[in-house]
Amino acid sequence: MEGADHLAHERKKAQFDVDSMKIVWAGSRRTFEVTDRISKLVAADPAFRKDNRAMLDRKTLFKNTLRKAVYAWKRIVELHLSEEEASALRFYVDEPAFTDLHWGMFVPAIKGQGTEEQQKKWLPLAYKMQIIGCYAQTELGHGSNVQGLETTATFDPQTNEFIIHSPTLTSSKWWPGGLGKVSTHAVVYARLITDGQDHGVHGFIVQLRNLENHSPLPGVTVGDIGMKFGNGAYNTMDNGVLRFDHVRIPRDQMLMRVSQVTREGKYVQSNVPRQLVYGTMVYVRQTIVADASCALSRAVCIATRYSAVRRQFGSQDGGPETQVIDYKTQQSRLFPLLASAYAFRFVGEWLKWLYMDVTQRLQANDFSTLPEAHACTAGLKSLTTTATADGIEECRKLCGGHGYLCSSGLPELFAVYVPACTYEGDNIVLLLQVARFLMKTVSQLGSGKQPAGATAYMRQIEHLMQCRCNVQRAEDWLKPSAILEVFEARAARMSIACAQHLSKFSSPEEGFAELSADLVEAAVAHCQLIVVSKFIDKVQQDIPGKGIKQQLEVLCSIYALFLLHKHQGDFLSTSCITSKQASLANDQLRSLYSQVRPNAIALVDAFNHTDHFLGSILGCYDGNVYPKLYEAAWKDPLNDSVVPDGYHEYIRPLMKQQLRAARL
Amino acid sequence: MEGADHLAHERKKAQFDVDSMKIVWAGSRRTFEVTDRISKLVAADPAFRKDNRAMLDRKTLFKNTLRKAVYAWKRIVELHLSEEEASALRFYVDEPAFTDLHWGMFVPAIKGQGTEEQQKKWLPLAYKMQIIGCYAQTELGHGSNVQGLETTATFDPQTNEFIIHSPTLTSSKWWPGGLGKVSTHAVVYARLITDGQDHGVHGFIVQLRNLENHSPLPGVTVGDIGMKFGNGAYNTMDNGVLRFDHVRIPRDQMLMRVSQVTREGKYVQSNVPRQLVYGTMVYVRQTIVADASCALSRAVCIATRYSAVRRQFGSQDGGPETQVIDYKTQQSRLFPLLASAYAFRFVGEWLKWLYMDVTQRLQANDFSTLPEAHACTAGLKSLTTTATADGIEECRKLCGGHGYLCSSGLPELFAVYVPACTYEGDNIVLLLQVARFLMKTVSQLGSGKQPAGATAYMRQIEHLMQCRCNVQRAEDWLKPSAILEVFEARAARMSIACAQHLSKFSSPEEGFAELSADLVEAAVAHCQLIVVSKFIDKVQQDIPGKGIKQQLEVLCSIYALFLLHKHQGDFLSTSCITSKQASLANDQLRSLYSQVRPNAIALVDAFNHTDHFLGSILGCYDGNVYPKLYEAAWKDPLNDSVVPDGYHEYIRPLMKQQLRAARL
Repeated sequence: MEGADHLAHERKKAQFDVDSMKIVWAGSRRTFEVTDRISKLVAADPAFRKDNRAMLDRKTLFKNTLRKAVYAWKRIVELHLSEEEASALRFYVDEPAFTDLHWGMFVPAIKGQGTEEQQKKWLPLAYKMQIIGCYAQTELGHGSNVQGLETTATFDPQTNEFIIHSPTLTSSKWWPGGLGKVSTHAVVYARLITDGQDHGVHGFIVQLRNLENHSPLPGVTVGDIGMKFGNGAYNTMDNGVLRFDHVRIPRDQMLMRVSQVTREGKYVQSNVPRQLVYGTMVYVRQTIVADASCALSRAVCIATRYSAVRRQFGSQDGGPETQVIDYKTQQSRLFPLLASAYAFRFVGEWLKWLYMDVTQRLQANDFSTLPEAHACTAGLKSLTTTATADGIEECRKLCGGHGYLCSSGLPELFAVYVPACTYEGDNIVLLLQVARFLMKTVSQLGSGKQPAGATAYMRQIEHLMQCRCNVQRAEDWLKPSAILEVFEARAARMSIACAQHLSKFSSPEEGFAELSADLVEAAVAHCQLIVVSKFIDKVQQDIPGKGIKQQLEVLCSIYALFLLHKHQGDFLSTSCITSKQASLANDQLRSLYSQVRPNAIALVDAFNHTDHFLGSILGCYDGNVYPKLYEAAWKDPLNDSVVPDGYHEYIRPLMKQQLRAARL
Repeated sequence: MEGADHLAHERKKAQFDVDSMKIVWAGSRRTFEVTDRISKLVAADPAFRKDNRAMLDRKTLFKNTLRKAVYAWKRIVELHLSEEEASALRFYVDEPAFTDLHWGMFVPAIKGQGTEEQQKKWLPLAYKMQIIGCYAQTELGHGSNVQGLETTATFDPQTNEFIIHSPTLTSSKWWPGGLGKVSTHAVVYARLITDGQDHGVHGFIVQLRNLENHSPLPGVTVGDIGMKFGNGAYNTMDNGVLRFDHVRIPRDQMLMRVSQVTREGKYVQSNVPRQLVYGTMVYVRQTIVADASCALSRAVCIATRYSAVRRQFGSQDGGPETQVIDYKTQQSRLFPLLASAYAFRFVGEWLKWLYMDVTQRLQANDFSTLPEAHACTAGLKSLTTTATADGIEECRKLCGGHGYLCSSGLPELFAVYVPACTYEGDNIVLLLQVARFLMKTVSQLGSGKQPAGATAYMRQIEHLMQCRCNVQRAEDWLKPSAILEVFEARAARMSIACAQHLSKFSSPEEGFAELSADLVEAAVAHCQLIVVSKFIDKVQQDIPGKGIKQQLEVLCSIYALFLLHKHQGDFLSTSCITSKQASLANDQLRSLYSQVRPNAIALVDAFNHTDHFLGSILGCYDGNVYPKLYEAAWKDPLNDSVVPDGYHEYIRPLMKQQLRAARL
């Protein structure tokens, strides 16, 4: 940091210890230390510079990413980084690359679905990156419905091989990251066919490219699927298209942990439980929730710092204008997002615990909690990614015109983030899964089977259907018990209402289809309750550090009351609260905004983002926004020359009325 | 169009005459004919090709835009196009360019604020494009608060000149389109200073570049401000930065229609009413509302057609999967946007009428309707642009993963559209202006001054404060009178509640600041009422064409009931409706979705967008999506070579464990 800290006066206002909050945000002192060290290491290395990314054309951008990804690997090896540190380093390089899929999908797929023998053969090659792998599941015509994939893997007993084939155009693999230009291997999902019989979708390790010259193997057509949303963003990644024309692979390249094909071509199921697949889903989605809190925290950090720098209107007698962060309209949009970032962080922490708990149970052959854990992570993935995508764009708008500049960092953050709403389960499809689980839970309420986990509140269904909120003054809304009860009552009543409505249909499936929009709303209510309740749990823990507990209480109340206001219609229509109570909640919310205002800058400092990671002039730590914006402008390629290329060819003939003579 | 129409079976389902609806959408047969002819002319000319825009680097993109803009001008001249046709041609070229600002801001500013003499001097030059102009208002540190601009124009009586100067970094002009690389002139807004006295912000015509060699004049620093959100999008435009170092211009280059500086340096106000400025604002914002309906219609057209092509889940016995447009979750997100596109079209038509009405009155020195018209257009600009920006992104998500590809057209449509939420008045700032107007209207209710125009409903304030909605069955919600009454009651009650709350504050300004978030909600309720009521007015007109009226009735009900559901909290908390009635509205909404379903494709065909204008593979007229996606992929520059640039430098050394030897 050079020069003065333009936000120093803001930092002095903080009523809590920022260093303690950094530990709370990181989850533990150890995690804080690792992420702090690695993020600074990346930030300090000019090879990881990313401020020019928006200006590069596709080829240059992609080549640059190859350089960075390989350099990152070199540093990981040189510095003898642990797996955790290596993963942190890749994270802070902050540029989607083929390595994400290699480490995040290819290796785990072999680990999870390969036999011990297969792991022994393939993992050492992958660990050293002697082969580079990706994960080829979705097809041009098939996304969410994995069972609808068309690619076939037909066993040929004569040669002991599978024939991998793309029978139609729509069966072309489409989207896999790292596939287009880099991967030498892929885990390919295809319909297993033995002796004319279709056994559904299974995974196969398929080599795609020659290991000596990188050219595609015979029968393999592979390429990049083209430009995606945004400058920089996911255009650093070679999302690919892949077609097979009867490509033969040895039988032992089917991933055979769960089911096998024997030498004779017999299809056999092993005794390894299929539920393991759901365990993996819980893991992946749990990391997506953690990423959501991080992405949202970046946007909020940028918008909060810039809102303290930017001034507009309100100048009396020629003095400075008002900081935009002091406007209630700004606060009422920004502070709920700040609270959401913290809320998602804590629910992410809890999901991590949930995943470990599920894993331990699975190892002990206890599958009882899996369906609930699966519904829970599916719902939270949907809730947090939708809110984060919308929140990033809202932060961009909160930065006014300058948020539209790439140098604000927000356009790229948005463009690179939004696919999270679609990948690993489309957010609406996931909410319908949650709704299905809720309807099942409701239908079993009378049966003696007790709802567990995050649906445990339904045990008190009778109380929740008739309880009355006893909030009488605005301050009553600060009581966690009051908040929890109305969120539980709202979720329960919406689920029950759906169930009752469903029962009027002759066919449950027809009813489910017809009411799906309402079911989605019930699922959202359930998921919001989970986030609120985990935030309340967190606040009620004993957290060390001056003023920390109080700040978290304020943020927790803001998160809950903001949701209550936003979804007033739910709470009122289910009679969980009265109009008067809704209005009191709103009064309390305004007063909470005033409490958070002096702490706002410190609360985003606690995320401990480096300027490199933020990648935003508007969000820079020292708040010295305007000189940096001005300086950055001149770096645009258009400013390479004072008179632009095209002047003599187009502008001058236009002005001189010589169009007929021009080459147009 | 080559090959089969994959959506033919959908088009056959339509229950109305599409050609008649095209006239309704266009507003008149004449407008339809002009736009149809010009849009096809542009689409058929390969010089206007735009499908490669996302792949071009900044310089190439910009030069390409210069070419197109100048070529468009050449065609306009060659074809002797009328002003209306020329403007349509620029519109269908669909690429932000310096000409937008020249025709849309520079010329109108001279027309509106210049004296007759000034118009005589400058307009002929501008009309022939012998000079190219832009509109330099916003500064690096100053956006919405025009009165806070820092640039100075100091009169020097000795030389009869103004000295234009940028006293600070934050006074740098920042954002003006066409400024960075092209404009030779600008209308510059600066604080007028005569004899040491500051007269506030005025407009000046300032030459920026040498007309012979295009280099900036002495004292002028000018350049491009850098990359903006999205691929292609506004990066075709040279939004610029501009600093003045004591640049002298002749006195007669101050725009002097409203106020003058005499040869002696005396500041004089003319008798031309200042309110004319508001007339211009009404005009500009009215065009923004029209653009909103067009932009939303493009996104909706793409998402609707693709939703009919895309199939997912629901396959029984190996048959084709279900078209995603048949899912209620898809319908409940898509159809309200379809209805919104129509709603915004009709409210835009009405605004056009309102502008003409205001203009006629101004010419007769009648300023009475101006404040209401100003509040109305400000509010509708805010409402429609916010809904359109959100709607485009929602349409993108409705296209699943493929919506993320640039070839879907949706990323660029979003990126190019979102600035509309910020320019010509930040949307939140505008809503606060509406709220201020509403509070004034409410405060005068007892005074005998009758609310007029779009606030006329407040005349029945006593009825609206106590009326009870008498909807008893779902079908009752189809009555326009029922809809209108609850929307009026909700808007009135929210305004009254704010006014009552405000009155409890000792200072009205403090109250306004504190309650601004609630005031914004009241303003939104008022604006939504306007859109709903104008849609109802339209439907009640006698519209020729088979089935047209019925379709519009369905869309109108969907728009209103969708809003009612979304803002249930408002309607319930103000006791405008009961929970039971809210639930009936939702039932009715579902049934309306089923009615619109068979007509969906025809309703988007009625927009009459060419494939060129849509610029979307997912939205192409013939629905032949997959082969086109597949074909387009191979055009990405990354696919120029099978083995990517960077393989030998980075990938191979990585795989061969030769990193130490590599240049990394």
